[in-house]
Amino acid sequence: MPAEGGPLSAGNSIVDFAALDAMVRPRSVAVIGASDDGTRIGGRPIAYMQSQGFQGRLLPVNPNRPTVQGLPAFASVAALPEVPDAAIIAVPGEAAIQAMDDLGARGCKSAIVFTAGFAEVDEAGAAMQERLVAAARRHGMRMLGPNCLGLFNAAIGFYPIFSLSFEQGWPIRGNIGIASQSGAYGTHVFAVARQRGLGTTVCITTGNEADVSLGEAIGWMAQAPEVEVICAYAEGIRESAGFVAALDLARRNRKPVIMMKVGASALGGAAAKSHTASIAGDDAVTQAVLDEFGVLRARTTEEMLDIAYAASRRIYPVRNALGVLTVSGGAGVLISDASEAAGLPMPEMPQASQDKLRGLISFCAPRNPVDCTAQAVNQTALFGDFLEATAGDGGYPSVLVFLTQTGGSTSLAPKLRPFMRDAIAKRRDRLWVLSAICSREKVREYEEDGFLVFEDPTRAVNAIAAMGRFGAYFARQVAGAVGALPSVVLPAQTPTEAEAKRLLAEAGVPAVPERACASVDEAVRAAEAMGYPVVAKILSPDILHKSEIGGVILNIADAAAVREAHATLLARAAQHAPQARIEGVLIAKQINGGVEMAFGVLRDPVFGPVAMVGLGGVFIEILKDVAFRRCPFDPAQAEAMIRSLKGFPLLDGARGKPKADVKALAESLAALSRFAVAAGPRLASVDVNPMLVLPAGQGAFAADAVIEIEEGH
Amino acid sequence: MPAEGGPLSAGNSIVDFAALDAMVRPRSVAVIGASDDGTRIGGRPIAYMQSQGFQGRLLPVNPNRPTVQGLPAFASVAALPEVPDAAIIAVPGEAAIQAMDDLGARGCKSAIVFTAGFAEVDEAGAAMQERLVAAARRHGMRMLGPNCLGLFNAAIGFYPIFSLSFEQGWPIRGNIGIASQSGAYGTHVFAVARQRGLGTTVCITTGNEADVSLGEAIGWMAQAPEVEVICAYAEGIRESAGFVAALDLARRNRKPVIMMKVGASALGGAAAKSHTASIAGDDAVTQAVLDEFGVLRARTTEEMLDIAYAASRRIYPVRNALGVLTVSGGAGVLISDASEAAGLPMPEMPQASQDKLRGLISFCAPRNPVDCTAQAVNQTALFGDFLEATAGDGGYPSVLVFLTQTGGSTSLAPKLRPFMRDAIAKRRDRLWVLSAICSREKVREYEEDGFLVFEDPTRAVNAIAAMGRFGAYFARQVAGAVGALPSVVLPAQTPTEAEAKRLLAEAGVPAVPERACASVDEAVRAAEAMGYPVVAKILSPDILHKSEIGGVILNIADAAAVREAHATLLARAAQHAPQARIEGVLIAKQINGGVEMAFGVLRDPVFGPVAMVGLGGVFIEILKDVAFRRCPFDPAQAEAMIRSLKGFPLLDGARGKPKADVKALAESLAALSRFAVAAGPRLASVDVNPMLVLPAGQGAFAADAVIEIEEGH
Repeated sequence: MPAEGGPLSAGNSIVDFAALDAMVRPRSVAVIGASDDGTRIGGRPIAYMQSQGFQGRLLPVNPNRPTVQGLPAFASVAALPEVPDAAIIAVPGEAAIQAMDDLGARGCKSAIVFTAGFAEVDEAGAAMQERLVAAARRHGMRMLGPNCLGLFNAAIGFYPIFSLSFEQGWPIRGNIGIASQSGAYGTHVFAVARQRGLGTTVCITTGNEADVSLGEAIGWMAQAPEVEVICAYAEGIRESAGFVAALDLARRNRKPVIMMKVGASALGGAAAKSHTASIAGDDAVTQAVLDEFGVLRARTTEEMLDIAYAASRRIYPVRNALGVLTVSGGAGVLISDASEAAGLPMPEMPQASQDKLRGLISFCAPRNPVDCTAQAVNQTALFGDFLEATAGDGGYPSVLVFLTQTGGSTSLAPKLRPFMRDAIAKRRDRLWVLSAICSREKVREYEEDGFLVFEDPTRAVNAIAAMGRFGAYFARQVAGAVGALPSVVLPAQTPTEAEAKRLLAEAGVPAVPERACASVDEAVRAAEAMGYPVVAKILSPDILHKSEIGGVILNIADAAAVREAHATLLARAAQHAPQARIEGVLIAKQINGGVEMAFGVLRDPVFGPVAMVGLGGVFIEILKDVAFRRCPFDPAQAEAMIRSLKGFPLLDGARGKPKADVKALAESLAALSRFAVAAGPRLASVDVNPMLVLPAGQGAFAADAVIEIEEGH
Repeated sequence: MPAEGGPLSAGNSIVDFAALDAMVRPRSVAVIGASDDGTRIGGRPIAYMQSQGFQGRLLPVNPNRPTVQGLPAFASVAALPEVPDAAIIAVPGEAAIQAMDDLGARGCKSAIVFTAGFAEVDEAGAAMQERLVAAARRHGMRMLGPNCLGLFNAAIGFYPIFSLSFEQGWPIRGNIGIASQSGAYGTHVFAVARQRGLGTTVCITTGNEADVSLGEAIGWMAQAPEVEVICAYAEGIRESAGFVAALDLARRNRKPVIMMKVGASALGGAAAKSHTASIAGDDAVTQAVLDEFGVLRARTTEEMLDIAYAASRRIYPVRNALGVLTVSGGAGVLISDASEAAGLPMPEMPQASQDKLRGLISFCAPRNPVDCTAQAVNQTALFGDFLEATAGDGGYPSVLVFLTQTGGSTSLAPKLRPFMRDAIAKRRDRLWVLSAICSREKVREYEEDGFLVFEDPTRAVNAIAAMGRFGAYFARQVAGAVGALPSVVLPAQTPTEAEAKRLLAEAGVPAVPERACASVDEAVRAAEAMGYPVVAKILSPDILHKSEIGGVILNIADAAAVREAHATLLARAAQHAPQARIEGVLIAKQINGGVEMAFGVLRDPVFGPVAMVGLGGVFIEILKDVAFRRCPFDPAQAEAMIRSLKGFPLLDGARGKPKADVKALAESLAALSRFAVAAGPRLASVDVNPMLVLPAGQGAFAADAVIEIEEGH
C-alpha cells in the first residue's frame, strides 16, 4: 500500500469517484460462493436482495447446485451469462484470489471481498493480500475489502453485505450515508440511526482497505445523488490523496461530513524523531486536516447522528444566531449556557418587540431566551403571539422552542400545534427545532410540520451550532493559490544551523543577522560589525540541539567576552561531543524584547509535510498549545493558525506589551509551508526555535533553525 | 435573607434536615384554596393525591363549599378538625400571608406556597415576601416557596404540586430524588426520567427559596430512606450553611449527588473588587465547593440521568477499572478512547488468560478491550468462555459488554443471555454494563439480569467512570481538623504592604526579608544589612497596585542605586498619585531563581472566604489557570489545589529546573486559609503576588501582599 499515494487501480483518476458506481450502484452482481442457505455468509446477500427487490440482475455462482435460493446458479465465473458490474467474493483465501482473476478476465470491474484471513491476521495473510491486490490490478478492477462486511445501497435494493442487523429492520430511506472502516461499528451506527428513525440509504464498510479507502467511500457519496449528509468512522486515515479530494468535493457539493476518528497514534516510529514531531501525534494532524475541510468531529455516535439528523434538512445558516422561546426560565438559562459553550450567538430581541411582549404578559422575560411562562401555554393565543414575535421580529436563522412535556401533553399540545405550524409555514428557510418529551408518533407529526425534534435541549443547541459551522464553512471563499513554490535544493546531509538558516531565508523565512566564523578573530570582527550584545553558538553539523551541551552563550557585551565565549564553546563541545566536527562558532545579533515563538514542519506518514506553530517555552512544553496545518498554505491561513493559539493574547498586546508583528510571522510561516512542499520527501523536519517576533512593523526572525534530512532517500 | 446564614426558622438546627419531614412526609395536609375542579391549580394536588392514594389525611379548606372533589371541606383554617402537619397555600398574595398566620396559630409546622407575585416580580413583591416570611417565622413554621411548583413524595402518594406532567404518567418508583430551584426544569428532569424508565420517588422544587433552600432539599434527601441518589438543579446557590451541611451528610450516608448548575455570575458587584476576585466568577467557586464534596457536575439532563441511573445500583467501586468484552474491534477502540478521556483505567488482561483466549479464537484480540469477534457470537459457548475470562481472570470492578444490535437480535440474543446471566450471578458486586440496541422490553430483561443498559458506549463509559469517582470519594478519609485558627486583629483601614506582610507572617505566610524605611539613609542602611541585590518599593496606604505607577524598582546593586531608586520612587508617586500619603520606601531582599506564584483570598457572597492559587504571569492572566477552595483547609488539601494546576509541572522539575518547595507553598496557602477565616467578614480580599517558591527545602516567601478591608463594617 503506498504511504502517500492514491488507490491502487492505476486506470482511475483519484478524484473520479463516480468510477465506484459499478460497485455501489451496479446493474448486475455475481455472488461467488453463493449459498442456498440464506442465513450463511454466502447466502445472506442473496436473501437480502431478493427480499428488498434489487433492481439489477443477481447471478449466484455455485459449482454444486443448479439453483440458489430459487435463482438459476452458474457453475463458474466463466459460465456467467453476462459480465457483471460487480461481484461479491465469499470464498476462502486462494479461491478468492482465483475468483478475482476470473472476474477480471471476464471484464468485471469491481469486487466486494468478504473473505478474511489477509493482512489483518499475519505476515502470510499480508502476502496473500498482495496477491489478491495484484489480481485486481492486473485487470483494472476496484476492490472493497478484503475482510469487509460489505455495503448497502437501499435506493436500489443492493445488499452485498452479511450483517445480521437487518433482522431488526431494513434501512429507512433518507439522505444520510455512512462510510466506516469498521464493519461492526458501521452497522452499529446504521442500527442506532434506524432506531431513531433516521434515513441512511447507503452504508459502505472498507475493511482492510487494500484498494478502496475510506476517503474514496466518502468521495463516492460526495458525488452521488443518494447522499446529502456523510457520516464517517475512522480508526486511522491510511491514504491522503483520495481522502483530501473527497473532503474537497463534499465541500464543493455542500455536503457536510461528520466524522468519528478514534484510536492511537499512527505517526508511529516517526513520532519521536524531532522535537516538533514529538509534540504532534497523528491525531492533531488529522484534526488539522478535518478543520481545513470543515469536517465536524463527533465524539460519540449519538453526537454524530444528532448532527446528521439536523443536517438532513439541508439548512445551513451562514451567519447563524439562535432565538429561543421557552416555557421554563430554568431551561432558558441552560440553553443560554449551552449556546455560549457552542459559540452560537443569541442576540437580544428588538426592544420594541420586548415591550410588546411585556404588554401581553407583564412577568414574561422577552430578551432571548424569550420566556413566555406557563401563562402563554394556558392561553394558547398568547403562545402564538410569542412565537410570532420571536421568529418574526427576532429574525433568527435558527429558532428553538422549548416545550418539554407540554409538547407531548394530550390536553395542551394539540392547541399549540397550529400556531407552530403557521409560524413555520411562513418561514421555511429557518432551522426550526423543538425540544419536547413526547411519543415517537408525536415526534413524527412535529417533524412533518417542519421541526427537528430533540428531547434534550443541550443536544438541540449543539446540533443547531453545527449547522451554522457548516453554513459558515460552505460560504467561505476557497483559499486561493498559495503562491509559487520556491526552488529548494536540499544538501546531501543534515545541514548546519547556518546553512539551515540560509536555506530558510532564501525561501522567505528571515533569520537574525549572523555570521559563521571559523576563527576567534573572525568572531570578534563579526561581533564588532553587527554591534553588541551578540550571541555565540557552537557550529557543527553533528550537534543539532546545541543548548543541551551548553553550546549557546547569550548577552556577550564586548570583544573580550567574545574571546571567552569562543573558548568556552570549544571546550564544551570537546567535552560533550568529542566526535563532532567543529566548524567554528556562529555570531548572531542578540535581539531583545521580541515574543519567542517556535514553528516547524514535521512529515506525517499519511499527509506529508505538516506545519506547526506555538508560543515558546511553557506554552509548548507544558501546555502543548500548538496549531497544525497541512503544507502549503497562504499567509491568511497561517495567521488563522497563529490566532487559534491559547497564548495568542501575548502577541496581541496582552500584559501591556506592544502588539507583535503577527503579519511578518504569518508570512514566514506560510513561506516555511511552501519550502516544506518544495523540498520534497527528503525533508524530515524543520524546527525554528526560537522565532523572535518583534513589535508590529519590525518583523520576525529565526534565531535558531534545525533542518533534518531523511536518511536513505 | 441572610447572606451566609442558615434557614430562617430559628428553632431548627441547620443540619436537622429531618425537620422537613412534616413537609415532605406528612400525616395530614390542608389545602388552602382547595378547588373542586381537579384541573385548576388549587384542585390538582387534591385530584393527584386522591388518584395516587395519599396515605395521610387530606383536608381541603374552602369557605364556599361543603365538599371539594368529594371530600368534606372546611371553611377556614380555624375550622380544621386537626392540626395538619403540612399545608398547601394556593390563594393570592394577602390571603396567603393571612393563611400562613392562621396555620401557624393552629400549630401547623410547614407550608408549601404555590402563590406567585412575590420577590420574583418586583420590589413591592419582595416586601410582601418579607411579610410572608415573617408570618412563618413568628410561628416557627418552615416554608417551601413562595412561587414554587411544589413537591411530590410518591412513596406515600403525597402530591402537593400543580405540574401537568402527570397527564403523561405517574412517577416510577425508585431511589432517585430530584431537588430543583426551577419547577419547570425539575419536572422536565422527572419527565425525562419517567420516559427512560427511571424511578424518581421524590421531587422538591424550591421556587423563591424564601425559607427552604436547595441545600435543605438535598439535605432532607441525604437523610431520608426514600432516596439513595440525588439529582439537583441550581441556577445559583443562595445560602451556604445548609448546602454545605447537606453535601456533607450525603457523603456520610454514601448518597451520590449529581448537579446541574447553570447561569451567570452571582459574585455580582464583588467581582471586580480585587485582582483575585476578577479572575474568579462564582462558577469557579461553586465548582470548588462541589469538588470539595465529591459532587459530580453534569452538563446536560441526559448526563445527569445517565449517572443517576448507574448510581441507582449503589455499586461504587473504590479503585475502579474497566474490563471490556466487545464484538466489534472498532467499538473497542472507541471505548478505550472514551475511558482514557474519562480517566478510567483499562488494565491489560493477565497474560495466561490472553493465551487461553487466543487458543479459542486465534484471531481474537484478548488484551482489553477483549474483542471476541463475530465468531464468538456465532458459537455462543465461545462467548461464554470469553465473558467468563474477562470478568473472572480480569477481575475488573466494572465490566462493559458491547453487543450493539446483537443484543437485540431475535436469533442470537436469547442464546447469549444465559451466559451473561451466569457470569453476573457469580459476581454481584461488580458493575455490569451492557451496550446494546434493543427494545424497551429487552432492556428490562437485561436489567433484571443485573445489567445497566446503555445504547451508546461512550455514555456507558462515562457513567461507569462516575461510579468510580463516587467510590473513591466515599472511601477517602474525611479531612481532619485544619488546625487552630490564628488570632487576627485587622487594622481599621486597608494596611500598607509592610503591615499586610506582617499580619500574614504572623499567621504563617512568611515574607521576603524587608524593612520599611522612612528616610533614604534608613533605606541604605537596610539594604547594606540584608545584602545586595535589593528591591525598593513605594510605601503608602493609598497606593495598592504599586507596579501600575512604576512604584517597584528591581536589581538594586549598591548604595548609590538605592539613593537613586528612592528619589525615582518619590518622584513617580508625586506625579501619579499626588494625593497619596507617602510613608517612605520598602527595601526587600531580592530573591532570584524562585518560581513566581500568586495566591490570595476573595470573599464570595455566599460561601465566604475562598482561597485561590495560580502560577504567576501568563498562567493566571492569559490562561486563567487557577484553583479555588473554600477556607479553611489543611496543607494536604492546599497541595492538592497546587497539583491540580495545568502549570504544576513548572513546580515539579519541568524544563530542567529543580523541584520547587511545594510543601512550603502548601503550608503557606493553608495558613492563609486559616487567616482568612479568623479575620472575619471585614476581610475583603488578600493578594499575595508574587509568592516566590524556592527549590525544595528552601521555602516560599511572599514578595508582595495586599490586604483589602471591607468598608462599612
